[in-house]
Amino acid sequence: MSNDKDRHLPVTEDARRLPVVEDPIAELPPIDGLPASEKVHVERDGLRVPIRRIHLSGGEAPLDVYDTSGPVNHDLHHGLPKLRAAWIAERLAHGDTGNRTQMHYARRGIVTPEMKFVAIREGLDPVTGAELVRSELARGRAILPANINHPESEPMIIGKKFGVKINANIGNSSVSSVIADEVDKLRWAIKWGADTVMDLSTGKQIHETREWIVRNSPVPIGTVPIYQCLEKVKGDPEKLTIDLFLETLIEQAEQGVDYFTIHAGVRLAYIPLTASRVTGIVSRGGSIMAKWCLAHHKENFLYTEFERICEVMKKYDVAFSLGDGLRPGSIADANDRAQFAELETLGELTEKAWKHDVQVMIEGPGHVPMHKIKENVELQDKLCHEAPFYTLGPLVTDIAPGYDHITSAIGAAMIGWFGTSMLCYVTPKEHLGLPDRDDVKAGVIAYKIAAHAADLAKGHPGAQRRDDTLSKARFEFRWQDQFNLSLDPDTAQQFHDETLPAPAAKGAHFCSMCGPKFCSMKITQDVREYAAAQGLTEQAAEQAVAAGMEAKAAEFRKAGDFYVAPE
Amino acid sequence: MSNDKDRHLPVTEDARRLPVVEDPIAELPPIDGLPASEKVHVERDGLRVPIRRIHLSGGEAPLDVYDTSGPVNHDLHHGLPKLRAAWIAERLAHGDTGNRTQMHYARRGIVTPEMKFVAIREGLDPVTGAELVRSELARGRAILPANINHPESEPMIIGKKFGVKINANIGNSSVSSVIADEVDKLRWAIKWGADTVMDLSTGKQIHETREWIVRNSPVPIGTVPIYQCLEKVKGDPEKLTIDLFLETLIEQAEQGVDYFTIHAGVRLAYIPLTASRVTGIVSRGGSIMAKWCLAHHKENFLYTEFERICEVMKKYDVAFSLGDGLRPGSIADANDRAQFAELETLGELTEKAWKHDVQVMIEGPGHVPMHKIKENVELQDKLCHEAPFYTLGPLVTDIAPGYDHITSAIGAAMIGWFGTSMLCYVTPKEHLGLPDRDDVKAGVIAYKIAAHAADLAKGHPGAQRRDDTLSKARFEFRWQDQFNLSLDPDTAQQFHDETLPAPAAKGAHFCSMCGPKFCSMKITQDVREYAAAQGLTEQAAEQAVAAGMEAKAAEFRKAGDFYVAPE
Repeated sequence: MSNDKDRHLPVTEDARRLPVVEDPIAELPPIDGLPASEKVHVERDGLRVPIRRIHLSGGEAPLDVYDTSGPVNHDLHHGLPKLRAAWIAERLAHGDTGNRTQMHYARRGIVTPEMKFVAIREGLDPVTGAELVRSELARGRAILPANINHPESEPMIIGKKFGVKINANIGNSSVSSVIADEVDKLRWAIKWGADTVMDLSTGKQIHETREWIVRNSPVPIGTVPIYQCLEKVKGDPEKLTIDLFLETLIEQAEQGVDYFTIHAGVRLAYIPLTASRVTGIVSRGGSIMAKWCLAHHKENFLYTEFERICEVMKKYDVAFSLGDGLRPGSIADANDRAQFAELETLGELTEKAWKHDVQVMIEGPGHVPMHKIKENVELQDKLCHEAPFYTLGPLVTDIAPGYDHITSAIGAAMIGWFGTSMLCYVTPKEHLGLPDRDDVKAGVIAYKIAAHAADLAKGHPGAQRRDDTLSKARFEFRWQDQFNLSLDPDTAQQFHDETLPAPAAKGAHFCSMCGPKFCSMKITQDVREYAAAQGLTEQAAEQAVAAGMEAKAAEFRKAGDFYVAPE
Repeated sequence: MSNDKDRHLPVTEDARRLPVVEDPIAELPPIDGLPASEKVHVERDGLRVPIRRIHLSGGEAPLDVYDTSGPVNHDLHHGLPKLRAAWIAERLAHGDTGNRTQMHYARRGIVTPEMKFVAIREGLDPVTGAELVRSELARGRAILPANINHPESEPMIIGKKFGVKINANIGNSSVSSVIADEVDKLRWAIKWGADTVMDLSTGKQIHETREWIVRNSPVPIGTVPIYQCLEKVKGDPEKLTIDLFLETLIEQAEQGVDYFTIHAGVRLAYIPLTASRVTGIVSRGGSIMAKWCLAHHKENFLYTEFERICEVMKKYDVAFSLGDGLRPGSIADANDRAQFAELETLGELTEKAWKHDVQVMIEGPGHVPMHKIKENVELQDKLCHEAPFYTLGPLVTDIAPGYDHITSAIGAAMIGWFGTSMLCYVTPKEHLGLPDRDDVKAGVIAYKIAAHAADLAKGHPGAQRRDDTLSKARFEFRWQDQFNLSLDPDTAQQFHDETLPAPAAKGAHFCSMCGPKFCSMKITQDVREYAAAQGLTEQAAEQAVAAGMEAKAAEFRKAGDFYVAPE
């Protein structure tokens, strides 16, 4: 699959840009897998689709769950194996039209290996599922971000017909910058379940950091190219030009970035609509473009030159993530004229991109109180012709800095239920500082909760299996299974062990919450076992109740003390 | 107000039950108040209603917020001052009918000082607001839990027309039991904003623990009396009797407990409906009563003897919290026949209680996926004649033990928006162990978020003021104000300081997220200031856009570099 095993980074053609003077990740320790979990592969038609298999005790069948963690035991210096290299090469060798997007193939009726892969990954039938994937991609209701220069990525799909996905933001800033930290955050984010990762670096070594990330990422990588452009003009937005922007897009597309956030909807005329807001423009990209527009008193060049941008996107199959540069930054500013004016423009740009067969998703807010969330989804759906929605939270209140993973998980779960395809995480550090490793995990777990809750509410096939399996384990006092089935086994076990650390407690039919005498689960099991032993089925019991069978009661009493000391 | 300053606990008549051999709270350190906060009082008609005033910098007006933390600097050994003692004595001295409930007075057209107090506390007009309170209490749509033997409590109201409230559970178990820990959790819970506290102790020293809690609690205290009954029969539910139960109710009512969770809706005929559930009966009280019913093959004595229970409740003004003993313990079991059958019975019992003018709220689930939450509220509203709903979460997924404060805050926010009056918190330790101090705080903060989000979504008057004040502070880089206005100033500041600890950073016009050059808030402010200086109002700007005023653009460019180094 890869005959450059002995090459060190960089692995792109652009090697001259990457003088690795010293090893920036020398100190990075290996990362552990999740407990009782095995990475298995569904093998079909030459595809090997990864799944995490959680093994259970007591003869229970294992549970297979979606897995984002990527290949194990690879050397970060070599980058990941190039899973998609042959597929891409095959397409380029035969019938390359210069347009390499999955949408382009889908619209020509071609089911790519990537489409089959995601069908299997989503638990669908490989044939009918792949056709569903193709058709959703063709009509633009889903995207499959897959830059031809990121062959390491394991294909995934973002669309309302599929499982709700989550994105984790990483990236350094000028205040804090270590490549190893960002690579570590990437590994940490995908270990806990991030479906895509955005590298939002704004500091030094933007290019080098990104190279380390892309080469080692099994998930699609997104960026906001204007950040690097601004570095190139030494922080002066007025000096930005479309040529510099296109050059930067090509640089990043060459590296393999899978989707770009582009704030092409921040039109000159909309900027004054933000003047009376409580928090003005809170999107970095949005404020940069607003400043450019005002300084030149010209229309946003990302808007006017949008077709030139499309030309780059389609050559590499980079998807648009049309940025919401005018998203509300506070409850007060939610659903205002500026926000929705921009959304309308994003709909117009979606159609333009689709003319080029370029994949598009639409970014959404931000800060929105619960009663205004649905309007966002419905309007986006209508104005943007069902292109997938990709929202940041939203936070449902402004009053809890330090806990915005929670304020936003509330909004994220709801907006996911209403039809959003991917949820961009918010960490506890939002508004306060740059997330570290712990914050990345806290954000990912909160968003796995939100996405899963949304899948449940949408009735997504199979979503409830994990809930049911865990609840059954809980009810049967299979403590270790309960931990292993949870989103964060380490924390679940640690919390349990704080009060009952003895290994024997893992088999105990109680916990420290109620102690052995008060455990309702234990009592219920006793009741159920007794009922079964006496032939007291649900139906029979109802009859018994009706008949007032006092004799049964006497038997029940004789069955003795239900409180059994823990084994 | 209190002339027993020198008495030590116990302060009830029941002194013989409380031999304080040694001081159980000797080691308890004092608790700090929140930063930049001052406890002030709205004084009116002889009432002194506490408010927390958050002082801001830069000449900004302070923000007043609801305050649950109670009187400061009191000696725990003496208990709190008896705020309501004179009001209660007055009522008992003049026109006592033996029925002392706030509902009873409300129905006779009497506006009690407690009603006036809560009207002011809710930010309502003292006259029309008090009448609203009275009328809501009279029709049973709100409750004001206020045992005549808990004169230390600061009156509060639970009802859909008022701010959404939260409850924090504390209490030891047989595995873990220290009185000081529980008193500390009480103080900690109300510091962070718990509106009521339930003492769910099941271990040793139940009575003594409760006495320390009630005497030192400015918030209503709830209990589940069946737990103590079970202790009295040495853990054998079959030995429970109505006489023992009534005796225990009286014991706890004498101490001053404000509301009792009573599982009177677990009827014999409903128990078999739980047999095919994934997690059976998960309510402790519910499983205890189920066991009693099955063992005796008799109807639940809490149901058959409900009127005798009402007689106790009305004498002390203890409110019912009608327990949902058959609530679902997993997503699989949500909204099933057992749950809704019990809910119907709770509605029947509500009417019975109201005949005695006894206040009632209804407990609700549990584990419910998002799309099934609304049905719960609507059915409860209908079946229980608009009695206030008091829900545990609900958790919207089962798969995240260790994070159930988050899984449940999602459901809690939504159910609060839909009309639930009080949200019972869930801590990160739910399903895993007994919450400690940190867990209590994590649970309270998550639920303050949920309750506030619900208030915002309901359009509760004044709720958005705190969001707007905080967002304005954020936008103006008043970092310290932002911290102080947040639900948890300590954590907000700590997170900020992890990357920018220098005191000067508190005045910096950026943070570590983006660094000084990329701050969108800074850029927006620059844009806004520029626009203002140039007379570029929102309207003028739109005209300017229309006219293509290139000259303005040139001026704007001349205004120079927007990037100002931090002061």
